[in-house]
Amino acid sequence: MIRVLLVHETPLLRSALAAALGADPELRVEATSWREASEGDRITRADVCVVDTDTPEPGAPDRHLPLLDLGRRLRAGSTALLVLAATGRPGLVRRATEAGALGYVSKDAEPDRLAKAIRMTAEGHRYVDEALAPDFIGATTIPLTPRELHVLSLIADGCSPAEIADRLHLSRGTVRNYVAAVTRKTGARNRVDAVRVSREAGWI
Amino acid sequence: MIRVLLVHETPLLRSALAAALGADPELRVEATSWREASEGDRITRADVCVVDTDTPEPGAPDRHLPLLDLGRRLRAGSTALLVLAATGRPGLVRRATEAGALGYVSKDAEPDRLAKAIRMTAEGHRYVDEALAPDFIGATTIPLTPRELHVLSLIADGCSPAEIADRLHLSRGTVRNYVAAVTRKTGARNRVDAVRVSREAGWI
Repeated sequence: MIRVLLVHETPLLRSALAAALGADPELRVEATSWREASEGDRITRADVCVVDTDTPEPGAPDRHLPLLDLGRRLRAGSTALLVLAATGRPGLVRRATEAGALGYVSKDAEPDRLAKAIRMTAEGHRYVDEALAPDFIGATTIPLTPRELHVLSLIADGCSPAEIADRLHLSRGTVRNYVAAVTRKTGARNRVDAVRVSREAGWI
Repeated sequence: MIRVLLVHETPLLRSALAAALGADPELRVEATSWREASEGDRITRADVCVVDTDTPEPGAPDRHLPLLDLGRRLRAGSTALLVLAATGRPGLVRRATEAGALGYVSKDAEPDRLAKAIRMTAEGHRYVDEALAPDFIGATTIPLTPRELHVLSLIADGCSPAEIADRLHLSRGTVRNYVAAVTRKTGARNRVDAVRVSREAGWI
């Protein structure tokens, strides 16, 4: 019997996924939200923690932080981290790698592939969906520095260059340089476009 | 027996939702993607067509169009449209209303609530989740005109004001006025922020 903790932000889809996995007699599935998963010791009592990397939480600029934090806590126990990722978004794969994920399942897959990945990772084996392979290559070539990513996420959050300068204790000229670098490196037409491009790639 | 066509863009979640609903002996569930749903006559052979309003299709600026188009085709037959919507995004509810949806189920609900809504709408009754009621009120008070929404969606797509002026055959001054109006009306700090605010509300 494999104990699975499924973490997903959308209750309807979370329940459905838990029901689909729960039909497998070898899996004992518990489903929860990010917030609940981060409290108590539920996650470390599971053999495998399945997490959707794309948590659409409007208005949460640090929405990608929980994965890193979750990974840190899982490594302290013996729970394997298995992520669900949309294809074509190398930033998601990169964050999952940084969080120490052992399994990577494409959201284009069928639930039986996910069940297979759960079995593999429960035994300590790595599992990577073929469909995500190009994103692993993309994930190693992120064009932006951590500082540039920080500036870009503040832009995405609606901050003006002046506000960013204040918040990061930089001159406005320096912020302008960062914005120009981000726009150029992402091949974007302007800063709104840089936000769009980077969000689609999963960098921010 | 109620024939249900489930339209969702993410195969893994689509299969899981279909499996969860399919456990109900009264429902015969078929699942498909937007693209497949819009071809042939599958949708009009169903009693109820269940659609997730939030189709995260990166790089598709007209990603909200299919719902209107789908609604038009369903009205031609006798298939009821039932939408799944995240709460707090009145723009999604508004688009669903415009598409002629009969059922509105919150994605915070459990699958058994969705099954109930499917039964109601299959019999021609309206079904609205209580959790979505505030969004119906919000949906009637969209602050932006169709033209302003068009300008905003072009900004969101990465167009510069000059490009927008060219595409809409407007002067740059007029575009600047639209951008200023959009920013003011959405209570945003700047145009990037206006895109963020409007996307979160589901207007674009």
